[in-house]
Amino acid sequence: MTRIAVDAMGGDYAPGEIVKGAVWAAHDYNVPIELVGKTDEIQKVLNEISRKGIRSNRGGYFIKKFKVDLSKLDIKITQADEVIEMGEAPGTAIRKKRKSSIVLAVDAVAKGSSDAVVAAGSTGAAMASSLFGLGRLPGIERPAIAVTLPTMDEPVILIDAGANSSCTSEMLFQFATMGSTFVKNVYNRKDPKIGILNIGEEEEKGNQLVKDVHKLLKENNIGLHFIGNVEGKELFQGNVDVVVCDGFVGNVALKTIEGSSMMLFKLIKQEFKSDIISMIVGLLAKPFMKRIYKRVNYEEFGGALLLGVKGITVISHGRSSSYAIRNAVRVAKEAVESGVNKKIAELIN
Amino acid sequence: MTRIAVDAMGGDYAPGEIVKGAVWAAHDYNVPIELVGKTDEIQKVLNEISRKGIRSNRGGYFIKKFKVDLSKLDIKITQADEVIEMGEAPGTAIRKKRKSSIVLAVDAVAKGSSDAVVAAGSTGAAMASSLFGLGRLPGIERPAIAVTLPTMDEPVILIDAGANSSCTSEMLFQFATMGSTFVKNVYNRKDPKIGILNIGEEEEKGNQLVKDVHKLLKENNIGLHFIGNVEGKELFQGNVDVVVCDGFVGNVALKTIEGSSMMLFKLIKQEFKSDIISMIVGLLAKPFMKRIYKRVNYEEFGGALLLGVKGITVISHGRSSSYAIRNAVRVAKEAVESGVNKKIAELIN
Repeated sequence: MTRIAVDAMGGDYAPGEIVKGAVWAAHDYNVPIELVGKTDEIQKVLNEISRKGIRSNRGGYFIKKFKVDLSKLDIKITQADEVIEMGEAPGTAIRKKRKSSIVLAVDAVAKGSSDAVVAAGSTGAAMASSLFGLGRLPGIERPAIAVTLPTMDEPVILIDAGANSSCTSEMLFQFATMGSTFVKNVYNRKDPKIGILNIGEEEEKGNQLVKDVHKLLKENNIGLHFIGNVEGKELFQGNVDVVVCDGFVGNVALKTIEGSSMMLFKLIKQEFKSDIISMIVGLLAKPFMKRIYKRVNYEEFGGALLLGVKGITVISHGRSSSYAIRNAVRVAKEAVESGVNKKIAELIN
Repeated sequence: MTRIAVDAMGGDYAPGEIVKGAVWAAHDYNVPIELVGKTDEIQKVLNEISRKGIRSNRGGYFIKKFKVDLSKLDIKITQADEVIEMGEAPGTAIRKKRKSSIVLAVDAVAKGSSDAVVAAGSTGAAMASSLFGLGRLPGIERPAIAVTLPTMDEPVILIDAGANSSCTSEMLFQFATMGSTFVKNVYNRKDPKIGILNIGEEEEKGNQLVKDVHKLLKENNIGLHFIGNVEGKELFQGNVDVVVCDGFVGNVALKTIEGSSMMLFKLIKQEFKSDIISMIVGLLAKPFMKRIYKRVNYEEFGGALLLGVKGITVISHGRSSSYAIRNAVRVAKEAVESGVNKKIAELIN
């Protein structure tokens, strides 16, 4: 059965929210868990869960509280003496801290005691340890981050969301292949539509990189369903399944989306606190706003996938709550069970 | 007195909304207007305004209706036989259609009958005709589009928002100079803070282009207040005044912001239509949502400025309503009166 290794020490709210999220996933999806980190700190959280249960938050809103019988769940702890902090240079950090939680969580997959990693700490460290600990899939030039974004319809995959700040057209072509295979096998979408993130729809638009990728994707003979260029605003209309871009553009896009959505929700909160009437209307409107927040909240998607390595690494948001981690474990489990890596390797070669 | 030339034929709702917006600006700001386009079509709209007044919409919401006495306003019409359509290749179009409304509107500034242009048609055509019709400011390598974005605090300027899809570090340095001068003189901000749009705050983050610009801005001796890298989400926090990036990244960022905000407002509308209770709450919440919409609506800012040409060109959104055009004319007027171009030329040389 698929076991998921979770870096218990990574993330702004580690180890508390991380351990709770992992236990929650074990409870909801019956998935075995390997918690990697400082045993005493992890045990403390587990004891708290035994006593109090899990208080379930979703998108900052309290949902429910439920009891968990840990003896019925398959949870093991792997000791890690060190932790890689957010500011550390990833390459140096993973070489120096061989006993850090993220390096050992990846090792668990490399050695076969787990099948996938979930990590909410330093993205750079998660990428570097996955790349060095698991290696690239045969034929893959560079791994890339595939992030799931909400749209008016089905979610869209943006790849690369930040693994490679400089890319060649061949790399972007491979990202398209990986993204398409992922959506097909994990999200069960037939014939996923692939677009290039560009500043106009016309073939001749954009910089040299996207023009070259356009040519490669147009001429592809491996059955990718290429629909041409898509603009930033089309990302959200639900008429494309996979959008490729270099990691610089993808990361900027991802963070501006996050920033502008956060601003809107903050403005709404402000507006509903301006006087007594607004507060009453705000209270009435709250359940509706909650539902909208749930639809666009990144926590629902649990995390981004690092595609192109020999193994599954799910990179979660630094601010992940237990709910986000629970979903990230589900995504990891689904990715393992779909055999997405084998299919990527087949398509590339 | 500053006269503004308005391309009456450019934009999705031209000439109706464009002419109404120009008249509205003349009425509100006492600014002389030169409407450039097909005289009969423009006259038809003017007649309608004389009869019915202007119905004022803001951000899709009806605001008020007011009478306008055209005989008291300084509005002239310049005949243009042709119109450049959205799909046309800008370079070819402005050479072939010498009598098009955008080319003649720019000509009006070149000849001195007006002081600035407002254009809501093809962005490419507005840029190309401004570049060829007005020429670059001395010392400026390439003009750039400066767009104003709402934040939690004061608006921020993003430059370049799409004029140049490939840039050198020297170009970005000039964009920073132009953006800073613009914010200082048109928005009256002292010592504007300049950031580079990047995928991390650390100096060594990002692609080669942003690393090189970082060096140039750090070492600048022309008094620019450089604060380092800013991430996409920091765009909205109001702690930076000018954010520089290449036109590809800027355009993607701009359109993803637009797309994600539009999606959120659509989801809110959907949610408030799901049943009878939601409709009642939605009605109560409407005035609050309106205020938020107003704060983030691009129409408030009227348009983006093409900086670096010998003249002022305001490029408005294709979907501009009369309200957006009214504001665009105000921005154009303020830019002319601030003498921003002279100050840019001084700082660059």
